[in-house]
Amino acid sequence: MKIDGRHYRTIWVDEDDPTLVRIIDQRSLPHYLVIEELRTVDQAACAIREMHVRGAPLIGATAAYGLYLATLTGPDDGRKFPGFLREAVEHLQATRPTAVDLFHALRRTETAIHAAKSKKQKVQVALKTAHAIANESEAHCRQIGEHGLTLIEEISLQKNRQPVNILTHCNAGWMACIDYGTATAPIYLAHDKGIPVHVWVDETRPRNQGSRITAYELLQHGVPHTVITDNAGGHLMQNGMVDIVLVGSDRTTATGEVANKIGTYLKALAAKDNNVPFYVALPSTSIDWDLRSGKDIPIEERSAEEVKYVQGWHNGKVLKVLVPPSDSPARNFGFDVTPAHLVTGLITERGICEASEKGLLSLYPESSRPGHD
Amino acid sequence: MKIDGRHYRTIWVDEDDPTLVRIIDQRSLPHYLVIEELRTVDQAACAIREMHVRGAPLIGATAAYGLYLATLTGPDDGRKFPGFLREAVEHLQATRPTAVDLFHALRRTETAIHAAKSKKQKVQVALKTAHAIANESEAHCRQIGEHGLTLIEEISLQKNRQPVNILTHCNAGWMACIDYGTATAPIYLAHDKGIPVHVWVDETRPRNQGSRITAYELLQHGVPHTVITDNAGGHLMQNGMVDIVLVGSDRTTATGEVANKIGTYLKALAAKDNNVPFYVALPSTSIDWDLRSGKDIPIEERSAEEVKYVQGWHNGKVLKVLVPPSDSPARNFGFDVTPAHLVTGLITERGICEASEKGLLSLYPESSRPGHD
Repeated sequence: MKIDGRHYRTIWVDEDDPTLVRIIDQRSLPHYLVIEELRTVDQAACAIREMHVRGAPLIGATAAYGLYLATLTGPDDGRKFPGFLREAVEHLQATRPTAVDLFHALRRTETAIHAAKSKKQKVQVALKTAHAIANESEAHCRQIGEHGLTLIEEISLQKNRQPVNILTHCNAGWMACIDYGTATAPIYLAHDKGIPVHVWVDETRPRNQGSRITAYELLQHGVPHTVITDNAGGHLMQNGMVDIVLVGSDRTTATGEVANKIGTYLKALAAKDNNVPFYVALPSTSIDWDLRSGKDIPIEERSAEEVKYVQGWHNGKVLKVLVPPSDSPARNFGFDVTPAHLVTGLITERGICEASEKGLLSLYPESSRPGHD
Repeated sequence: MKIDGRHYRTIWVDEDDPTLVRIIDQRSLPHYLVIEELRTVDQAACAIREMHVRGAPLIGATAAYGLYLATLTGPDDGRKFPGFLREAVEHLQATRPTAVDLFHALRRTETAIHAAKSKKQKVQVALKTAHAIANESEAHCRQIGEHGLTLIEEISLQKNRQPVNILTHCNAGWMACIDYGTATAPIYLAHDKGIPVHVWVDETRPRNQGSRITAYELLQHGVPHTVITDNAGGHLMQNGMVDIVLVGSDRTTATGEVANKIGTYLKALAAKDNNVPFYVALPSTSIDWDLRSGKDIPIEERSAEEVKYVQGWHNGKVLKVLVPPSDSPARNFGFDVTPAHLVTGLITERGICEASEKGLLSLYPESSRPGHD
């Protein structure tokens, strides 16, 4: 999507120097736009570990490009290459524990590199695979966008082209992916098609990915939006100020239960109570076919410091301030689980379906239905 | 309640110098405890307007003490006194538009002063009335505490004296009143009685009255508590980590609908969905007998800056940081309305009742039931 009028992806290879990978360092957003150069596998690992990049699809792509950077400095001796490559894979694998995309992307890229013979071919195939991973993520997001667009178009017609008010939580935007995002993809496609939309952006405490990243994305792409506290959505829905809720998902069970950023469940309850459609956008790769209950999804508990300190801009600097008494304990649950009966539908790259096993399976031809491992 | 081991109220007259009123200036809490001296009606008006003090009962008491300070410098000429007093009343009345307690307290104190003859008597009666207003608020809060205590005791017995987990939102604590608070009164009484309790403190964006003030109160009084984001409560209730929700109310309709700090409605929905009792504590003076629907309660919209900037402590200073892009708009709705069917019960100084007209009327003897004006 656009920043300062120019189209960006979250990760790309320099046009003039193909040994240079560039990323948007998201840590200082929205106050600084920092483009970071990655030249080594160490730099790529650091960017993932220290969350210069975040979001499962982007983490996967960054790891693949990291392996490509590793091959550039690999040994010419073909017998030494596998050991060298394994070390790079393990280095990248150790950066973040949760995102499945990281492991998928590394396995796929490593396998492709092994299959190539000369070092030159290994380098070529590494780059080709990283590109393929990024392009596939972008394509999936675009397809999610096209399916979700039909929902927005329908509401727009019902409202006689008055702006469609969409509420979103956290950042399931292009900054978490390669482009388009998941929950934001239908919004960007609608906006670019001239359908009037307005987005209520939940600030999404404690890390404020909504007010920091989603608001930045929408502002830069020119999409009308308003930042609200996480507390406000219920009141808006009670008063007819939300037409549809669109959120992402970190993991979806085979039965259609959705683990997403903490607070998503509260918005789903309010949507149900006020007959507001509540849709979850996700690439089908994030469905966990082994899980039949949301209770089995492990909920990450993160550092209490993220609750107690808030990062922001003051006098030309990005700094953190302490809000509660320093001696008050805090706890920081990263995700919650929204039961399937509160979800109006799931928007995947394969189409829109009911949040149920039957619904999810209907997305696949009968001959190739996924199942338990 | 206690600060640094010593008992405080939020407002008091100096023991040695009765022309001096002291308040806790709440703006720098929890990072500084500032005791402010009020010697003039202007200083009292400023303290209300600039929110050195806040919370409807405390605003009312501060206004009454402000009128007392005014009488000290009133004219000796009895014919000039009424005009002088009216000016002081109007000055104090113009500080905050919403809290009904402010107008009640001023009317009552002005009337009492008029009835006294000499200037000396006027001063005495002003002080006596201000004390009476403060003492009545304290007594109401204590009675709310005693009624609410029975609910906590019951849960404590059911849990075999394991800590009772209470979730609260915003600050309906003693800092909003004279002492005890409303929603916090049952908690303090239970704690002081040796019943193990633990409080989940919603930080309560945007002004963070939970993490700043409620956490400070509980920490200072030694009550076990944990600060959480406003997003977390649903997840806690889904996982059996909340035994009861206790919140305050800014205005309650004759039909039992509750206007309270924005986000209260979302917690009520989660409580209902998980069979967690949801109680609202309020002095009966905050019931609006003229209103029959929560839709008729005007919802204050406050400055967007409160959403965009967060106040906290950094390097020995209290300062504000900007979180979203400076060009992103924000909106700031102060309250939401929780429908009566989500409220398990109302805790008033008169007793506990169902959240309905029938329930509220049952608190009064048949001969003196309140009704529409």
